[in-house]
Amino acid sequence: MASTIFIQPSFTSKSLNKSLNTHFVPSFKLPGSVSFKPRTVSQLSVRAGLIEPDGGKLVDLHVAEPERGLKKREAAPLPRVKLTRIDLQWVHVLSEGWASPLTGFMRESEFLQTLHFNSLRLGDGSFVNMSVPIVLAIDDSQKERIAESKRVTLVDSDDNPVAILNNIEIYKHLKEERIARTWGTTAPGLPYVEETITKAGNWLIGGDLEVIEPIKYHDGLDRFRLSPVELRQEFEKRNADAVFAFQLRNPVHNGHALLMTDTRRRLLEMGYKNPILLLHPLGGYTKADDVPLSWRMKQHEKVLEDGVLDPETTVVSIFPSPMHYAGPTEVQWHAKARINAGANFYIVGRDPAGMGHPIEKRDLYDADHGKKVLSMAPGLERLNILPFRVY
Amino acid sequence: MASTIFIQPSFTSKSLNKSLNTHFVPSFKLPGSVSFKPRTVSQLSVRAGLIEPDGGKLVDLHVAEPERGLKKREAAPLPRVKLTRIDLQWVHVLSEGWASPLTGFMRESEFLQTLHFNSLRLGDGSFVNMSVPIVLAIDDSQKERIAESKRVTLVDSDDNPVAILNNIEIYKHLKEERIARTWGTTAPGLPYVEETITKAGNWLIGGDLEVIEPIKYHDGLDRFRLSPVELRQEFEKRNADAVFAFQLRNPVHNGHALLMTDTRRRLLEMGYKNPILLLHPLGGYTKADDVPLSWRMKQHEKVLEDGVLDPETTVVSIFPSPMHYAGPTEVQWHAKARINAGANFYIVGRDPAGMGHPIEKRDLYDADHGKKVLSMAPGLERLNILPFRVY
Repeated sequence: MASTIFIQPSFTSKSLNKSLNTHFVPSFKLPGSVSFKPRTVSQLSVRAGLIEPDGGKLVDLHVAEPERGLKKREAAPLPRVKLTRIDLQWVHVLSEGWASPLTGFMRESEFLQTLHFNSLRLGDGSFVNMSVPIVLAIDDSQKERIAESKRVTLVDSDDNPVAILNNIEIYKHLKEERIARTWGTTAPGLPYVEETITKAGNWLIGGDLEVIEPIKYHDGLDRFRLSPVELRQEFEKRNADAVFAFQLRNPVHNGHALLMTDTRRRLLEMGYKNPILLLHPLGGYTKADDVPLSWRMKQHEKVLEDGVLDPETTVVSIFPSPMHYAGPTEVQWHAKARINAGANFYIVGRDPAGMGHPIEKRDLYDADHGKKVLSMAPGLERLNILPFRVY
Repeated sequence: MASTIFIQPSFTSKSLNKSLNTHFVPSFKLPGSVSFKPRTVSQLSVRAGLIEPDGGKLVDLHVAEPERGLKKREAAPLPRVKLTRIDLQWVHVLSEGWASPLTGFMRESEFLQTLHFNSLRLGDGSFVNMSVPIVLAIDDSQKERIAESKRVTLVDSDDNPVAILNNIEIYKHLKEERIARTWGTTAPGLPYVEETITKAGNWLIGGDLEVIEPIKYHDGLDRFRLSPVELRQEFEKRNADAVFAFQLRNPVHNGHALLMTDTRRRLLEMGYKNPILLLHPLGGYTKADDVPLSWRMKQHEKVLEDGVLDPETTVVSIFPSPMHYAGPTEVQWHAKARINAGANFYIVGRDPAGMGHPIEKRDLYDADHGKKVLSMAPGLERLNILPFRVY
């Protein structure tokens, strides 16, 4: 996908299996297809607003402003767990409800369901998608310090209290199993693994978060970090009746721009009145050889200024999640988080969230597995998958 | 679990998570619990017969007797794929509907769903559990010989045609990913991996099976190999209103016998009139240091003869599946297959389908993860899990 001449969104209805209920947006080009309607359009037309967040309600884990002083005093005497830069990004992700209905770092039952089923079962028997473990590791000495406490305070690198974790559960951090089931390999050299797992503690601590203040990075880009609530407000303000999300961790090139413009045109043809593009670069941890966020954001702004994308119908914002590079497993997370931000269409390309195999001369994942897995994933039935192929 | 003094079935209702719909059979000992009813009893009491098989209908992939000659002639000119001993066991498993609603070796969409979700989505949007890939590997030269053919003939070690595989799909055998996602490790020395994956071809071939004749082993034990249909007939003949399955790959010891007797007593207390035990040793491939099937069957018969278990309320039969030793992933398969055989209760002990880590000095799996994962697994909601602990 390095250099692109021509992009053709492939809207082909690809029934992977007769018995499967896939939800690719069907083709516009099927011979003899009359008055085509994609599966969810009828649902959407009777629904007043945007797609519902997972679990029916956006999670917001922030302490209300008047109670912040109180919470800080509550936090002071509790055992402390120091957050890494990436841990803090996850607190940010959780606090704003990108992972709704999760209310904090995973407890063991959520961790196991994520590893084995890529989904969580809710009380009513329904499933939401959840494919990457959102967990917090602690080491033996931290565990000992926590002892019988039911709450801990999470602090940043300067020891400032960031959040309280309540009703905690401490369980074994089975690293090998976590890595194998998340990445489908245990080969050395996976960036997120080296960065966050290999040297991490042998325990995981789960619980319900109370985040004392909204997480800010003070890097000049906070204004782009719209929460799911803020994005939904923006889409509503613009009277969006469809939101199509495009995740990037690279600069926008002409092919991408064409794809996004063309997708909007097609959504209009499908009968939507005002489809809005969520251009949504990933802003959390990325590996060393990816293009840095600040460069990417400059380039994204330029694309809008130059009129390559229409500012009227485009929202550029930063997705605060760190990057796993876990291919078909991770692309589900990328899609699920966008449902929570109000997107009901998700554009997926070749080898999403993929990378080269760390020790073999090949891609780590089959380039088509991402969109296939995405189309079959439990809990993503409501999302319309827009696969595209770069020629 | 080597030597046992006392076994106490732990029927505790253990809600792993407030938001989770677990289905352990709740405790009989809850203080103040009046007229307790386990979740599925009401469903059972209104249903005339045994628990429904997955997908609503037991799959039977055998060619009807009058057509066998015809099928053999159809099979003769087709490209051939030679089955290993373990492949043949899977043909057996598939042919009798243990893996209902699967109708043959997995195609890629089923393979991916199994690896990522441990479940398959059916046309109506519901899920059935499917946790271990049931796949057939071929190598490059076999793939070349098959070329554009839509059907192949599967032959045994003597080149006798066993089955036709129809509407075939050939796709990449991503061994590392298959192993990592199924076992949660890629450490060398996993018995099933060494036996069937490491040396196997780089392609998988899926399709719909037509099995020419019922698979027999002529080892003196075929009379114990009751199919799910035959087991259901047997349970109906005995007027079972509950069937509780117990899988073993070791001889029955006193503790086991006590557990099974006690479970029946408890089911009677719950209001069932005639609970039947399915004592169901695994009969397919096991690792070299497991007790051979023929010894185990002799011992199981002895236990019945000696009256340790009541022959009136016990059915001893062989489960034809090969053994993966894949712990929490595999125990789901063991449970799911028993639903298809009519069991609505499944007894699960410590570290089911587990083994020692092949290269580290520890168990490969957390001993409690098997029953936890089983209790949360998609598609197993109808099954009552009976966890027990050996003291």
